[in-house]
Formats: sequence, C-alpha cells, structure tokens
Amino acid sequence: MNLIIINGPNLNLLGVREKSIYGDTDFDSYLTKLQVKYKNLNINYYQSNIEGEIIDKLHEVGFSYDGIIINAGAYTHTSVAIRDAISAINTPTVEVHISNILTRENFRHESLIGPVCRGSIMGFGLDSYRLAVESILGF
Amino acid sequence: MNLIIINGPNLNLLGVREKSIYGDTDFDSYLTKLQVKYKNLNINYYQSNIEGEIIDKLHEVGFSYDGIIINAGAYTHTSVAIRDAISAINTPTVEVHISNILTRENFRHESLIGPVCRGSIMGFGLDSYRLAVESILGF
Amino acid sequence: MNLIIINGPNLNLLGVREKSIYGDTDFDSYLTKLQVKYKNLNINYYQSNIEGEIIDKLHEVGFSYDGIIINAGAYTHTSVAIRDAISAINTPTVEVHISNILTRENFRHESLIGPVCRGSIMGFGLDSYRLAVESILGF
Amino acid sequence: MNLIIINGPNLNLLGVREKSIYGDTDFDSYLTKLQVKYKNLNINYYQSNIEGEIIDKLHEVGFSYDGIIINAGAYTHTSVAIRDAISAINTPTVEVHISNILTRENFRHESLIGPVCRGSIMGFGLDSYRLAVESILGF
Amino acid sequence: MNLIIINGPNLNLLGVREKSIYGDTDFDSYLTKLQVKYKNLNINYYQSNIEGEIIDKLHEVGFSYDGIIINAGAYTHTSVAIRDAISAINTPTVEVHISNILTRENFRHESLIGPVCRGSIMGFGLDSYRLAVESILGF
Amino acid sequence: MNLIIINGPNLNLLGVREKSIYGDTDFDSYLTKLQVKYKNLNINYYQSNIEGEIIDKLHEVGFSYDGIIINAGAYTHTSVAIRDAISAINTPTVEVHISNILTRENFRHESLIGPVCRGSIMGFGLDSYRLAVESILGF
Amino acid sequence: MNLIIINGPNLNLLGVREKSIYGDTDFDSYLTKLQVKYKNLNINYYQSNIEGEIIDKLHEVGFSYDGIIINAGAYTHTSVAIRDAISAINTPTVEVHISNILTRENFRHESLIGPVCRGSIMGFGLDSYRLAVESILGF
Amino acid sequence: MNLIIINGPNLNLLGVREKSIYGDTDFDSYLTKLQVKYKNLNINYYQSNIEGEIIDKLHEVGFSYDGIIINAGAYTHTSVAIRDAISAINTPTVEVHISNILTRENFRHESLIGPVCRGSIMGFGLDSYRLAVESILGF
Amino acid sequence: MNLIIINGPNLNLLGVREKSIYGDTDFDSYLTKLQVKYKNLNINYYQSNIEGEIIDKLHEVGFSYDGIIINAGAYTHTSVAIRDAISAINTPTVEVHISNILTRENFRHESLIGPVCRGSIMGFGLDSYRLAVESILGF
Amino acid sequence: MNLIIINGPNLNLLGVREKSIYGDTDFDSYLTKLQVKYKNLNINYYQSNIEGEIIDKLHEVGFSYDGIIINAGAYTHTSVAIRDAISAINTPTVEVHISNILTRENFRHESLIGPVCRGSIMGFGLDSYRLAVESILGF
Amino acid sequence: MNLIIINGPNLNLLGVREKSIYGDTDFDSYLTKLQVKYKNLNINYYQSNIEGEIIDKLHEVGFSYDGIIINAGAYTHTSVAIRDAISAINTPTVEVHISNILTRENFRHESLIGPVCRGSIMGFGLDSYRLAVESILGF
Amino acid sequence: MNLIIINGPNLNLLGVREKSIYGDTDFDSYLTKLQVKYKNLNINYYQSNIEGEIIDKLHEVGFSYDGIIINAGAYTHTSVAIRDAISAINTPTVEVHISNILTRENFRHESLIGPVCRGSIMGFGLDSYRLAVESILGF
Repeated sequence: MNLIIINGPNLNLLGVREKSIYGDTDFDSYLTKLQVKYKNLNINYYQSNIEGEIIDKLHEVGFSYDGIIINAGAYTHTSVAIRDAISAINTPTVEVHISNILTRENFRHESLIGPVCRGSIMGFGLDSYRLAVESILGF
Repeated sequence: MNLIIINGPNLNLLGVREKSIYGDTDFDSYLTKLQVKYKNLNINYYQSNIEGEIIDKLHEVGFSYDGIIINAGAYTHTSVAIRDAISAINTPTVEVHISNILTRENFRHESLIGPVCRGSIMGFGLDSYRLAVESILGF
Repeated sequence: MNLIIINGPNLNLLGVREKSIYGDTDFDSYLTKLQVKYKNLNINYYQSNIEGEIIDKLHEVGFSYDGIIINAGAYTHTSVAIRDAISAINTPTVEVHISNILTRENFRHESLIGPVCRGSIMGFGLDSYRLAVESILGF
Repeated sequence: MNLIIINGPNLNLLGVREKSIYGDTDFDSYLTKLQVKYKNLNINYYQSNIEGEIIDKLHEVGFSYDGIIINAGAYTHTSVAIRDAISAINTPTVEVHISNILTRENFRHESLIGPVCRGSIMGFGLDSYRLAVESILGF
Repeated sequence: MNLIIINGPNLNLLGVREKSIYGDTDFDSYLTKLQVKYKNLNINYYQSNIEGEIIDKLHEVGFSYDGIIINAGAYTHTSVAIRDAISAINTPTVEVHISNILTRENFRHESLIGPVCRGSIMGFGLDSYRLAVESILGF
Repeated sequence: MNLIIINGPNLNLLGVREKSIYGDTDFDSYLTKLQVKYKNLNINYYQSNIEGEIIDKLHEVGFSYDGIIINAGAYTHTSVAIRDAISAINTPTVEVHISNILTRENFRHESLIGPVCRGSIMGFGLDSYRLAVESILGF
Repeated sequence: MNLIIINGPNLNLLGVREKSIYGDTDFDSYLTKLQVKYKNLNINYYQSNIEGEIIDKLHEVGFSYDGIIINAGAYTHTSVAIRDAISAINTPTVEVHISNILTRENFRHESLIGPVCRGSIMGFGLDSYRLAVESILGF
Repeated sequence: MNLIIINGPNLNLLGVREKSIYGDTDFDSYLTKLQVKYKNLNINYYQSNIEGEIIDKLHEVGFSYDGIIINAGAYTHTSVAIRDAISAINTPTVEVHISNILTRENFRHESLIGPVCRGSIMGFGLDSYRLAVESILGF
Repeated sequence: MNLIIINGPNLNLLGVREKSIYGDTDFDSYLTKLQVKYKNLNINYYQSNIEGEIIDKLHEVGFSYDGIIINAGAYTHTSVAIRDAISAINTPTVEVHISNILTRENFRHESLIGPVCRGSIMGFGLDSYRLAVESILGF
Repeated sequence: MNLIIINGPNLNLLGVREKSIYGDTDFDSYLTKLQVKYKNLNINYYQSNIEGEIIDKLHEVGFSYDGIIINAGAYTHTSVAIRDAISAINTPTVEVHISNILTRENFRHESLIGPVCRGSIMGFGLDSYRLAVESILGF
Repeated sequence: MNLIIINGPNLNLLGVREKSIYGDTDFDSYLTKLQVKYKNLNINYYQSNIEGEIIDKLHEVGFSYDGIIINAGAYTHTSVAIRDAISAINTPTVEVHISNILTRENFRHESLIGPVCRGSIMGFGLDSYRLAVESILGF
Repeated sequence: MNLIIINGPNLNLLGVREKSIYGDTDFDSYLTKLQVKYKNLNINYYQSNIEGEIIDKLHEVGFSYDGIIINAGAYTHTSVAIRDAISAINTPTVEVHISNILTRENFRHESLIGPVCRGSIMGFGLDSYRLAVESILGF
C-alpha cells in the first residue's frame, strides 16, 4: 500500500517556526516514528513551498497511489489550483492540519481544499497525520 | 479510561434517515463494534434532541471523564450554548462529523463548537468516531 | 387520514399575546372549528416551547401520519435541527405562519424550514392552518 | 364575486417549459377545472411578459375586483414597480408560486411583492392557485 | 424652450394612491398650475408604466429638447436601462422625487439614475417638479 | 414585590467555569447576599440550560410578577424564541450580563433580547444583578 | 440555418451613443457586412427596449431557430425574466457584449443571463457578434 | 423671513479648492448675489469646520428661524450628531450639495442627515443654494 | 469621592428635544435630585457638543477622579477618538444611555466606546445615571 | 503572425480530468487541428502549473508576439500577479475558458484577469480557443 | 524649508498613555531630538483633539509650507473632513503612524486620509516621524 | 550589516511597465545608487515571479541577515504563504510599496503581509526603498 504525505509552504520549518503553535518536533523525526509504526505501509514524503510543484506531485501520484495525506499549509486558504488538482485525480486524499485552524485568524477558517477531500482532520498536533493514516487503513 | 460519545439532534435516526448522506448502518451496531475493538476502554453513549440536555450531560461528565467525542449535529452550527459548555468543562473534547460538512449547505460550513474542541474529524462516515477514539488514545 | 398540527414556541399564548399581530382568537377554539369542518379527518395537535421536543414529535409521527402542518414560530428562523428532522421523515410537511413574516423584523424573513417543506402558506391569520389542511387534501 | 389570476413572464409556457420544475399541465386546462369547481365565482385570467402591462392591469382591476391572485414569476424578485402597484390598489392580493422558491437559486429566495400582499402560498404546484382562491373565500 | 416631465410607474395614480406619502393632489391639476406659472416655457408631459416606453421617449426627446425632468418612480432603484438611456442622450436631465426616498425602505435609498443626471431634487412633494424647472432656467 | 432572576445556560457553573471571565463567586452565595440586602423584596431564582424551559418560566411569571431580571447567557445571541416570550408577557424585564459582552467574540456582541427588554446592564460582574434590582425599584 | 441577433435596450443608438465605449459604427451597416460574409446563413435581427418584448421574441423563435445571439444590454444585469425565457426555450443561445463589461461599473460585472447561455463572448467591439456566429457554426 | 445658510468643513475654501469639482466662484460673491435677488428675505450665513460648532449654531437658530439650508460637507457622511441636532430642532431644514455626491467616492453616497431634512437638492453647483431658498418660499 | 457626568452632543436639549424618546425632564433638575440623594459624593457635570472638548475633559479628570459616567450621545457610534481617550485614562468609566439604543436605527446599535468602559447601562431613562452612580459605589 | 496559447494549472490533464466538465479530447490533438486549420499562423503552446512561470512566459512573449490566448485555469480567480503581468505587456491578450465559469462554484464566477484582457470567450468547450484565434485575426 | 508635524487626538498623552502600544517617550523630547538632527529645517508642531481645528491648521499652512507630516490618530479612520482638507491644499502631506495599525482592531485598518497623502509610513514607533522628514527631503 | 531587498512578481519590469504608475527608472540603476549612498551596508537583491521561491529566499536569509526589505508586489494581497514565511523567520522585515496602494483598485488595499512586518512604507516611488533602509538603520 503506497501512501504519500504532502506538506505545503513553510512546513519545512516545523520544529523551528512558531513553536507555540506548531510544537517543537521536526517533521523528519515524526515521519520516522510513523514509518516504524506502520511498517507494512510504504509512506512517502514530499514538501514544497511552490504551489505549482504541489500540483505536479498530485498529478504524478494521484492515479497510482492508495492514499494522499495533504497539509497544504497557507495554500489551504488561497489555492483553487490545488483544489482542482485534488478533484482531478483518483487517489483518495485526506486533509490534515496540525493546529485547529478555527482558532486562528479569520482568513484561515475557510479551507478551499476541504470540500474535495475525503475527510479532514485537524487540531491534534502532529498526531493528525497518524489519524489520517488510520483513516486510509479503515476500521 | 472513561470516554463518552454524545450525539446531537436527529442522530437517533442514523441508518433510517437520508441514507445517501449518512449511510445505512444504525449507530447501535456501530457502537458495539467500537466497544469490542477497544475493550480496554469504557465507551459510554448519550443522545438527545434537546440542546439543553446535551449541556447538562457535558456538565455531568466534563469534570471526571477522560474524553468526550461529540457530534452535535445541527446544533454544531447554531448553539453558542453548547460551545460555552465545552469551554467550561475540563475533559478534552473532540468534534466529529459523519459527512464532510463543507460539501453541504452554506449554513453547515461553520462550526461554532470547533474552536473550543481539541480537534475536529469529519467526512469519514461512522469511521470518524473511531478516529476520534484514536485521537484520545494518542500515538 | 391522520394529520397533526405542530405549533412551536409561544404559540400557546395565542389569543393572549400581541393581539395586534396574532389576533385574539385562542388556538383551541379554532382547532375545534377546524375539526368540525373536516370531520372525516383525524386532526391531532401538539405544542411545545422546547426545540428538541418538537423534533421528538416529528420523529414519532413522521413515518406513519399522512400530513404534518407545522408553525415552528421563532424556531422557523433559527433551527437547523428542526429542518433536519423534517428532511429525515417521510410524511409531507406544510409550513404555516399566521402573520406575513416578510413584513416583520429582518431576522424573521428567512425560513430555515421552508426549503424542506412541501410548501408554505403565510399571512392569512389562523386561516393559514385551514389552507394547509386543504393543501394536503388536494384538488 | 370577481377574481382575477395574473400570471407574469414566461408563465405562458407552462406545460412546455422546464417540466421538472413546473409540471406538464398547461395553464388553460387547469383554469377550466378551477372555474368548474368554483362556478359561483367569476375567475378571470391575464398573462403578460411585460412588467408595465401587469401594472396597468393591476390598476384596472384593483379598485373594483374582490380578489387578485398574482404569480409574478421572475418579476417577483426584481420589480419594485409591481410592488408599488399592489400597494396602491384596494383589492386584496394573494401571492402564489408553483414551485418552492426557497429551494431554487439564491436570487429567487426574496420576494419583493410578498410584503405588500395579504398572504403568500407556494410550493403546491398548480394547486397553489386553488388554495389562493380558498384564502379569498375564507373559512 | 422645450421641457418635458416624464413620470414613471404608478405615478398615474397620484392623488389616488397612498395619500399619506404622496399627498392628495392629482398630477394633472398640478401640471396646469405649473404651465400657467411658466407660460414662456413649453412644458410637455409623459407617463408610462413600461420601462422600455420611457426609454423610447428619452431617445425621442433627448437630442432636441432643452430639459428633461424625470421621476422614474420605482424604476429609479432597478433600471440600469433607463440610466443608460439618460447617459446616451444630450438633453440635460434632472431627477425628481416627491417624497424623501431616504426615509423609506432600504431598497429605495439607492438611485441608479441619479449619477447620470445633472442633479437631484427630492422630498418637497409636488413642489420638487417646480424646483426642477427652476434648476433648468438657472439663476 | 415579587421579582425573579432567570439565569440561562451554563450559569449553573458560575464560580466553577472560566473564572478569568466570570469571577469565582458561586451564584447561590451572591443571591443570599442580595436577598439579605433587599429583604422587603421577594427575590426568586430560576436556572435552566433548556431554552424552552426558560420560555415556560417566562410565561408562568410574566403576567403576575413585578419584575424579571434575565441573564440569558448564550441564548442572548441566538434565541428569537426567548425574545418573543419576553415580548408576549407583561412584566417589565431587565437584561443583565456579568461580563462586558462587547469585549468578547463577535457573535456575542449582538443581543437578540435586548430590544424587547426595558433596559440592559452589563459588565459589572455579579453586581449587574443588584443594579437590575435597583432599576426595578426606581429612584 | 436560421439565426437571429437580438439586441436589448439602447442598442438602437449604436453609432450615436457614447462612442468612446461603443464605437461609431451603426448596427445596420455592420449587420449587412455580416450577412454578406455568411451568405449561406439566414441572419435575422430584432431590437427592443422593452424587456417583455424580448421575452416574447425569444418564445417565438426559441423552438424553431438554430441559434440565438443575444446582447441584452442593461437587462443583462437586472432581468431574471429574460434569463428564464432563455432557460425555457430549446435553441442554443450565445451571450454577446460589445465592451468588456468587467471594466465598467460594478453593477455591470454580473450577468444574470450568462449562466443559462451556451457561452459568452465580450469585449471585441462589434466583432463579438461575428465570433458568436462562428461559435454556432462550430469548428 | 429669517433664513440661514450653514456651510460645513472646507467650504470656506470654495473657489480655491478643487475647482474641477466645486467651480471657481467664492461663496461670498455668490451669497451677495443671492441676497440681492431675494431682498425681502433675511439670509444669514455661518461656516465652521468644527462639527460641534455647527450643532451649537443649529440649536441657536433652530427654534426661531424660518428655514435652514445646510451643506454639511464631509460631515454629511459621518455625523450622527448633526443629524440628531436637525431632528431636535423645529425649523425646517433643507440639505444642499454643490456636486452630485452620487458620482463621487462610495463613502460620499450616503447622507446621514438627508433622512431628517425636509428635502435634498444636489448637483446644480452653487445654484443648489438658490433652489433651496425657492423650496422654502414655496410655489 | 469625586465623580463626573459627561454628556455629549445635543444632550443640552434634554427636556426640549424629542420628548417621546428622551422624556420631558431637563437634566439640571435631575442632576440636583441626584446630588441631593448622594450628598456624600461630589458629582460634577460637563456637557459639550464638540468631540474634542469631551476628549480634553476626559484627559483633565481621568487621572484624579474616582469615576466617570459618560453618555456620549451620537458620538457613541462614531468616535474612535473618545474611545481612545477612555482607554488612555485611569479612572473607571461607565457608559450610560437614556433610551434603549437597540430599538432605534441600525447605526445606533453599535457602541464604539462600550468595549473600553467598565460596564454599560441603558434604557432606564434618566434613571440610568443613578444606576451608574450605584455601580461606582458598589454593593 | 506569432500567436501563443498559454494554459494554466491542471490543464495538462485535459482529456483525463473531470470529463463531464471538460470533455474527453486531449489538448495536443486539438492543438494540431487548430494549427492545420490556421496554417498561415504560427501558433505556439505553453502550459505550466506554476503561477510565476506563466508570468515569466508572458514577459517573454509579451513585447514581440501578435496575440496571446490565455486560459489561466484556477489562477483566473486568484492571481493578481498574472493580471499585473498582462497589464504590463504590449501584446493583446484574449481570455478563454472551456466551460461556462458562471455555472460553477461561486469562487469561479469572478475573473481577475478578464478586466485587463482585450476580450473574453467562454463556454464553447475547446472551440473557445478557435474563436480566440478568430478574434485576433479580426473580421 | 518649513515643515509641520500635526498630531491628532490623544497624542498629547504620548509617554503617558498605553505604553505597551506607544512606548514611553513623550513627544516633546522626541521633537527636540528631531529638530537638533535636522537643524537646517524649520520643524513646527501642532496638536489638537478637535477635528475642525486640525482642518483649520491644514488650511493655514497648506498653501505656503513645504511639507506636512500628519498623524491623525483616531481621526485617521473616521474623518472624511480631514481627508478633504488634505485634498484641498497644495503642500505635500505624509501620513505617519507610530504603531502598525494593521495589527490592531479592525476599525483601525482602514485609513481615510491615506489615499490623499503623498505616502504613508507606519509601525516604526516615533521613528516614523523621522522617516517622514526624510521622505520630504528626498534621496 | 547584511540587508536584502526582495522584489516580487512583475517588478523585474520596472522602468518598462506602466510608467505612469511606477516611473521610468529601472531598478538596477536605483539599486546601484542606493549601494553607493550606504556603502557601509551590504545591500543584496533578489527578485522572483514565483511565490514559493520568495518563501525559499526568506527562509534562507531570515535567520542570519539584519534586515529584509520586501515589496511583494501582487502577492502582497493574495499570499498567506509569504505572510507565514515572514512570521516564521527572525530577521526584522519592512514592507515597501512604490505606489500608494490605497489609491488603486480595491483588491490592492489590503496587505496580507503588513501585519507581520515591523512597519510599512508606501507611496514614495523608488524612494520608499531608501526610507526602509533608513528605518533599519534607526535614528
């Protein structure tokens, strides 16, 4: 089973940036723990700060992978183009957020990509990613 | 570990009502499966169509239980009072929705209770409840 | 043929309350006249000030009765939960208002339950209820 | 007792146009049935696609007829002028819609003429016209 | 000097309609008084309830007359087409209202034709028309 | 002189809940102090988390008591039904809030019940209730 | 192949009116050129300033012609009735504008008839009409 | 007959300021012409840039003068206090604007004082003041 | 204990102006009664129609007095500057309104100064001032 | 004559993606047909999912080519930067859409780039591109 | 070279008021430092809490000085009159703010005077004034 | 002292593009002048049309440089991602605009990045960059 986690802009700074919001774990360490826990799965990883590169990646994996877990970061609220890419592909996609976006600035309350994802998980810190993996595995 | 699932208005009709949106499983059967899977946990259940009774229940369990999983149904979008009840209690509360509320009518897009919950999970059908249990258990 | 008239909050005060808007007939007298006129029909009556009890009643009658006539009063404008209850049941439901809600305060102009009812009748005073009965009987 | 039914723009196409919304009965056949049922009444009929002609007709009948039943079609949502005509005349006027306008596009949700009519009836198909006649006849 | 007063929908009912707003003088008597007072001027008159006929009239007089006084009635608030007609012609046009439209319903507060008129006069009852004549005559 | 204080949802938790906003005095102790200070008055008390029960209570006392002091809590911002109940009764009603609702979330800025109350007092902590009693006693 | 070009209000003034926006060619000369270029086609023409007459014409040609090219002028932004007429007929209809409506006043940005047309062409001056003919002819 | 013209902020710069909007006549010269033309009237003048001084002046003249002509300049759009002063006095007040405020920035479209004036005149340059005098004199 | 009551624009007309809203008592008489009732307190008084003078007064008293009672009149709804002055001083300030501002025009519903005051009291007629004094004295 | 067609995000999936909206022809086949039909023209092609690369391309061709045909896809609704690029260059640019964007989600109704293009063509499927070529060729 | 710094309401309290926002330097000390640094310039100073006095000052200096530096304080967000004064004068005017107004309350985000100033500088504490002086001096 | 100027989309066209707005100096010449004037400083330069590359650059310099001067061009109004990047880094960042964005289209009035910058400078042409350098140097 092939999964991929796609992280959007600034998420390369996890563990460095605004720790009061995002915690102080860097994503690589977390990813390793996740891969160990779910060793039967092939969990890939991709991060880019460029909207169009995220679209390219979605096109690349979206017709053959079994699941996509996407945290589009700030593009969540502004990118109709990523939304369209998710609509266009076949692989079920799950939206993930580390923080509870509803408790932040108004312009972060609306997710443009939420409506085209299978489901959304937010607010559980990095554990949101694990729950997304669980959602793809199913009951 | 004491958990409770609180379901709001009309969720007593699950498996009867609008099957194209909510599926055809009734909640009792699902609950049993959940209790079997997580037999170490004590998973309680409460449903009411009355906003104030849900508040009463939150007050009752909110200072002693280890986790609350709430699907406030239609009250999600209209009840400041349930939001206040969740703010007032100590037990961490997780918001759950069966369907992806972002794909339904506009007035269902905003969750009044989301901002005071620990996190939100939506769109995975009844499996949203299991993911909420997982979120309380942690990694 | 089993019908039920469901009246929402404050409608127990009909004939007492703001007579300039609602007239000075109390609902019981009117109901009797209606039952006499349509003696072939079994016209039941229910009133509650509690949103959730109205939902309970809709669930109770909504799979066996032949028609529901609902004047949800103030809940017309605020209750997504009653709307969902009407959507969830099978019995055709007709929305009724005594006054013309379009001539009152702005927040009374929108009906949340109108879109899920078979039709709406408003502004004819208590006669709106008779017209609703007529609408269920048909041509 | 002199009544008139006034139909607004495009309602001359009833039975031809968008049958999924308006049904497949043409209005003339329906009118005949109505006149037969209420043979004591003198039920006249007028249709025009021109806003100003509808105003002219309202002026003509609005000081001598006993009741006006108006389905202003699309002008319901845009015509302050027809609203003013209804305000200016003496004959009680009842607003009628075939479909439930609340379930259609947003711009059809607001009725500009509703607030100056005696009452409104909508959603019952062509039977809305009969209910309007009933509302003028009274209990 | 050729002037024309153009009155829009329902203004044929002046003196009949809603006297508390528009007063009880009919327009013909007033016009005669005006023609007597300004006997050097040729003051013509036109009234129609049909938006397009008002446009036709504006085209007809708008390249040869010395002044147009228009009370577009309800079309003031809805007719982009009359606005365009006024823009398209050469004769200076003055907007007139009998009542103070700012004290009436919200949808009467905005004038679509005001911005393309030379000036606007409102609230002085029928005397607004005389002031408009004065404005064309100048100091 | 018969007065009643009616507290809405979550106000049973006063002294327990969010002390930084509401202070740490429980309401019973405060009520006793108030009853001692105004021993000539008969100050009753009622609290419910259920919107409809508050309406029932307003109906019960609203035609015989001399004054009602209501802190509708979260229902202040959402309940048209409580507003209607206050409109429908005869007893003068005073709106009270412990905190200054204008300094909290946007959805708490508007009071639906304020416009039908005799007056409003807010921001003085529990002392708001005493000021409300004073307002009923008068100069 | 029978086509018709329908022009709305004020477009009879083309070549006369606001030349900086619409150019100085009158429509008749342009039409002749178009008829010459596409001599295999039967290109008819209709213009009216009256909304309802445009509806009448749409009804008349809308069940037998092969294509309708409509420039509804100012009615583009205000006429739900013309929109409904286009929805009601069978002939494919193409929306045309001479100027780029997006660069003009805000109230000209929205087209009410656009959503029910086959497609829209705007901003190419009178050449927009030729492109509409091309669109009906196809590749 | 005692009249007063009250000019608001920046109108002391008339003839100096933005001549393309306000023309190049200074107000004093104009006032003299007006006083000559209406020599039977006592036309006073007051100008201030201070909102509260305009209120003071309205209080001073508002119970004894026969007419007030006010051009509140920028305060037209922001001063509820001047509006209240006009409401509070007895002398009929006429609103005047030199330019057509509807053709300027959006925030100049709404007049806060218009609704409490007897009428409004705008867009005729300085001649607006003469028309206001005429409106007070009457037919 | 030094208090001051500051009244804003037009409140010098109390007892003269719009008696149906503000009652017919003039403020001086009321102030005397208040000073007699609370003879231990030193209750000062200031009124101005000029926004900036009210700010000057707030600066003058705001670092030495024990309490400020402010009825900013129309400036309540428009003056960020008075709001800033209240924020900048140390003396606790109580907002007072004679009428219930929520029942008046929309632009009177929002108080810009409310959020920086200790509390707000409105709707009790002149008695609102006494309640404000009581609020400063405390239980 | 040098033309270029620039396609924005996800349009590389044409013929693969959401066929019910975009049809099942891939763009390359269509382009070949177009180049054959207009063999006198040099029709180039560029596609990118990256907003900034589209800007780079516009800069590159925008001072030497004879025409640009752009379908900015999702960036149509979000990219001020592409709008600015089109404004900055000299080559006339035509906006093209395959589907009728007015019939899709609300956030697709507004085109940010439309106002700076020479004209817009939408709704004709892939044929929109041919019409754009025609618009550049002229009559 | 004659410059003037004009400070609006409450800025006389600098160094006293809300130090967490505005710092603890009083303006006089800062001004002295500025005058020392730019001794070739004649830097004048004016402060008033009265909107109209600021307008008076702008008129006084606005036709002879070489530069105006204005921090209109709260009037920034409410004063169309000061905006008009700046438009009316000839001296180039620079807008200055001590704090970053975009990080404060919503009603402080919009500057009414910004659009008529030569430029705006904000967020650099008192150093914003020096930068404004630099902007007038030029490169 | 290491500074960097980061220019966003289309700013590579400075001196070429819309000279009426941006002037006719190209940025390279200006930069050289700036570097000469501040020869003690190390002023670097970066320009990209790609949002994500700007983010990459901000990450690269944002933990070691002494100051960042950013003119994000069109991304100012649309990029939450650049805002987040500025929030995430440590180097103080100053926002710069060549033109006064408040005098251009509405969608250019709001800056998404302003609230996370140390301060903003706009409207001084290219001199805005020098003022930003000055702001980093301090008094």
